[in-house]
Amino acid sequence: MTTSLLLLAGLLGAALVLRRQLGRARLQQVIFESDTPAGRSFDLALLAAIVLSVLVVGLETDAGLHRQFGTQFRVLEVLFSVLFSFEYLLRLLCSPQPLRYARSFLGIVDFLSSIPTLAALGATGSQPLAVIRIVRLLRVFRILKLGNYLQEAQTLRNALIASRRKILVFLLTMVTLVVIIGALMYVIEGPASGFTSIPVGIYWAVVTITTVGYGDVAPITPLGRITASVVMLLGYSIIAVPTGMITAELSQASRSAAALPSKPCGRCGQSHHARGARFCHQCGQSLIGAS
Amino acid sequence: MTTSLLLLAGLLGAALVLRRQLGRARLQQVIFESDTPAGRSFDLALLAAIVLSVLVVGLETDAGLHRQFGTQFRVLEVLFSVLFSFEYLLRLLCSPQPLRYARSFLGIVDFLSSIPTLAALGATGSQPLAVIRIVRLLRVFRILKLGNYLQEAQTLRNALIASRRKILVFLLTMVTLVVIIGALMYVIEGPASGFTSIPVGIYWAVVTITTVGYGDVAPITPLGRITASVVMLLGYSIIAVPTGMITAELSQASRSAAALPSKPCGRCGQSHHARGARFCHQCGQSLIGAS
Amino acid sequence: MTTSLLLLAGLLGAALVLRRQLGRARLQQVIFESDTPAGRSFDLALLAAIVLSVLVVGLETDAGLHRQFGTQFRVLEVLFSVLFSFEYLLRLLCSPQPLRYARSFLGIVDFLSSIPTLAALGATGSQPLAVIRIVRLLRVFRILKLGNYLQEAQTLRNALIASRRKILVFLLTMVTLVVIIGALMYVIEGPASGFTSIPVGIYWAVVTITTVGYGDVAPITPLGRITASVVMLLGYSIIAVPTGMITAELSQASRSAAALPSKPCGRCGQSHHARGARFCHQCGQSLIGAS
Amino acid sequence: MTTSLLLLAGLLGAALVLRRQLGRARLQQVIFESDTPAGRSFDLALLAAIVLSVLVVGLETDAGLHRQFGTQFRVLEVLFSVLFSFEYLLRLLCSPQPLRYARSFLGIVDFLSSIPTLAALGATGSQPLAVIRIVRLLRVFRILKLGNYLQEAQTLRNALIASRRKILVFLLTMVTLVVIIGALMYVIEGPASGFTSIPVGIYWAVVTITTVGYGDVAPITPLGRITASVVMLLGYSIIAVPTGMITAELSQASRSAAALPSKPCGRCGQSHHARGARFCHQCGQSLIGAS
Repeated sequence: MTTSLLLLAGLLGAALVLRRQLGRARLQQVIFESDTPAGRSFDLALLAAIVLSVLVVGLETDAGLHRQFGTQFRVLEVLFSVLFSFEYLLRLLCSPQPLRYARSFLGIVDFLSSIPTLAALGATGSQPLAVIRIVRLLRVFRILKLGNYLQEAQTLRNALIASRRKILVFLLTMVTLVVIIGALMYVIEGPASGFTSIPVGIYWAVVTITTVGYGDVAPITPLGRITASVVMLLGYSIIAVPTGMITAELSQASRSAAALPSKPCGRCGQSHHARGARFCHQCGQSLIGAS
Repeated sequence: MTTSLLLLAGLLGAALVLRRQLGRARLQQVIFESDTPAGRSFDLALLAAIVLSVLVVGLETDAGLHRQFGTQFRVLEVLFSVLFSFEYLLRLLCSPQPLRYARSFLGIVDFLSSIPTLAALGATGSQPLAVIRIVRLLRVFRILKLGNYLQEAQTLRNALIASRRKILVFLLTMVTLVVIIGALMYVIEGPASGFTSIPVGIYWAVVTITTVGYGDVAPITPLGRITASVVMLLGYSIIAVPTGMITAELSQASRSAAALPSKPCGRCGQSHHARGARFCHQCGQSLIGAS
Repeated sequence: MTTSLLLLAGLLGAALVLRRQLGRARLQQVIFESDTPAGRSFDLALLAAIVLSVLVVGLETDAGLHRQFGTQFRVLEVLFSVLFSFEYLLRLLCSPQPLRYARSFLGIVDFLSSIPTLAALGATGSQPLAVIRIVRLLRVFRILKLGNYLQEAQTLRNALIASRRKILVFLLTMVTLVVIIGALMYVIEGPASGFTSIPVGIYWAVVTITTVGYGDVAPITPLGRITASVVMLLGYSIIAVPTGMITAELSQASRSAAALPSKPCGRCGQSHHARGARFCHQCGQSLIGAS
Repeated sequence: MTTSLLLLAGLLGAALVLRRQLGRARLQQVIFESDTPAGRSFDLALLAAIVLSVLVVGLETDAGLHRQFGTQFRVLEVLFSVLFSFEYLLRLLCSPQPLRYARSFLGIVDFLSSIPTLAALGATGSQPLAVIRIVRLLRVFRILKLGNYLQEAQTLRNALIASRRKILVFLLTMVTLVVIIGALMYVIEGPASGFTSIPVGIYWAVVTITTVGYGDVAPITPLGRITASVVMLLGYSIIAVPTGMITAELSQASRSAAALPSKPCGRCGQSHHARGARFCHQCGQSLIGAS
């Protein structure tokens, strides 16, 4: 714990020095943006570090690998903790609105994946807590800004938000259906077939109606299998609904996008033109020279 | 049984007193509507009670929990039975058309989840009958009126109803396909691989063609596995059909909804016009010069 | 065999007598059409007989039921064989084009589900041959004419036919993908994990990529599980394609259906009118009085 | 090895002789095109050879078949190697741009499935290397030119390319989701239920969220099953997204194709006009008065 605090103080000092050397604006450009070559390199290096650190967290949980490479994993973990803590301090120091950054979603993720893991270095890492470090992966969403994928993410999010209410009604119907089917199968099959309680029946119904079908709980009696078949066939038709909703929404979005960006005609005001149109199809007015 | 009847009589008396105190109209507003703060609070409390009571019904069937918390479950069940019975009597007493309410779908569900379970309190609850209490969950559909989700539910229902005939033709084809594939696999694999009869083969075909795939019955012989592979690949293409049908229907619906924002006609007020319409298709009024 | 021939001769005689009594036209109306009450009743009775006979074929294969109800099943089977043979002879005798009927798809199904099973009555029914009787189920497609579902079936068939070439390209890609993935997994996992040969690997790939997932063959080694995860995630994206194709086709069909049936305007010839339009939206001409 | 080289030299000589006999142009027509009867026959024979040779590669890996038909498989393999090597040399000799062909995708596949396997004839074929011969199957894509399926393949490829960025964003989200859910389930279930490490948890999450559901790793504890149910229900809604994206893209494509049959402009010949267009959007020519 004491070593962690000393380490943190050292990192803070180094970050302050770096800020003085480079200047706040330049540092912000490198860390928060990706338009400059330096900013792009920083983002790619960070991406590699995140993926590697998550890999270490994951592989460390494997009993065999832990026995063999335990020390190496520990050293790497210390390195990544120091690195991400230093990066978090830098972000905090060069952000124009430090408080707003600290309370943003990615700011909280940055914090959780750096300072606490640094602080826990001294303690003998209990597994469940160590797993929290996996949230680091959420930081890869920063790379979306690298490739201008933000608009695509926006389109998907809009389609999901526009279908929000329909999805809620659908989920409510599904939950009700699944509970009633689960109770029914519990009565039909009984504990002898593995349906030991209604919650287990509900679990089976979810596994079946989403077509996952583990097979750990499955009907054995003829009546149970007939009921299950009906559930599968009808359920399959019902589960087509979310696909339909999101598709309709995305189609709508792509139609709107195809219709939106045309400039209205200067003479008659008609604003739905074919892509690349040079004359208004309603009044023949030139769409290029006129403006 | 006698205690149940006494209890029921007491509840009826209390409900009559409450109706006199509050007035029928006020009581109806609180219980059946959710526009007033009181009505909203009542609905939320009811929702919590329904979810809790279903939880109790479900958890009670778990052998371990039943042994440990048997008495507590029983007490809670008595409480919920009294509560729902009281609520049912209130609904009956304050509804403007009690008979119509009693014969409506939700009215029957309300009855089934209250009075019979109250009556069964004295009897040593046989499990299968007790499970009927799970229908209480259907009552959560009342909350749809809380959030104005009715239109979304309507859209989904319309899409399903409009695809009704197509879904029936599709299901008939599926059932035929599944029976013939099931018989074929029974001949190919035989009892040694678990395909002990044609019905079992049909069960396997349903499990496979809906992509659930438990694995409790699975082909072992080379010929059986080849047939199964063909069934999966072709079946997958066929099962895309219900998704397609519902999607096309929902797209249609959202397109119709999108046709809304056209300017209403100045003479007859008709507001659904084709794109680029120059005359109202209802009354022939010019849509351009008039405004 | 001799009894079968005698029975067949008797049935033919009875059919000829019935044709003389009722008249060919009347008989044809009852058997082939469902517009009259008699025709409808005949179809419903036939539907019940088909479903029952298929049920008997199926249940007979269950070892337990066969031991218990063997004789009853045998009696029922004789009855159904006689019934369907008689019906086939009647159809043949009253059809205006007997040869064309005999060579049509449903005609062949009718033949297979009647005469051969009648002929096999004498022989000690070997199971595999007996299973052919299950084709009787195909005859239920006759009931489509009962409810005017033919148009819906047509729409679905058209969508599948229009996507024919795309589906073939897609299936060719899938088969290639599945063979290469199967060979890859055979090399990675080897016989120790159940991947005993490339064909088994291909079977696994089909089971996985169609999301059926029995679990009878599943990767065990880390590399195999990583490969399998990539196959699942990418495969899932690829398998969305048939759904997309059929949906696009069905959307197209429903759009065309919505646009087709409008009468062109008598003055300007505009033929895309809103449903129920009374005036042309292009020139204001009345669409009703003018014709 | 020496025999292989001698064989290769002999094949080269035979190919050179064949080129002189037939003439380069004629040979190219037969091998690379399928418009002539000879070209079509060559393609069909090649298709049969490819399918047969892949079948041999696959069946050879089965231990039982290998023991029984080992020699026959070996003879067939020699024949196919000689055949494909000869064909590769012919293609190289009659192609107008041999280097460009050799470096094209199908050229490399042709090389890999002929010369190396011929060279390896002498060596005692180690299985993993022998499996490379399965890439021969990729050569079946040549038959796409047989049936003019290229346009369909193009449409599908375009839809996938147009959805490229959306699919990438979607896959990134999926991977993140799957890693976090996998880590969560590892903490909840622990090694006792088979979740021996985070990577195993991630494998389970992929198997579950893609609805494959092997059942080799499945939750046992109540909390694990509840989490799994939520993952399935929510995951199912999310996984509807790629279907939606590709469908919207394919709908868009089929809509564009449907926009074709509009009357071409009398002046510039432009034939893609908006519905109801009165002037050409390319040159401003009136589309109505002119005809």
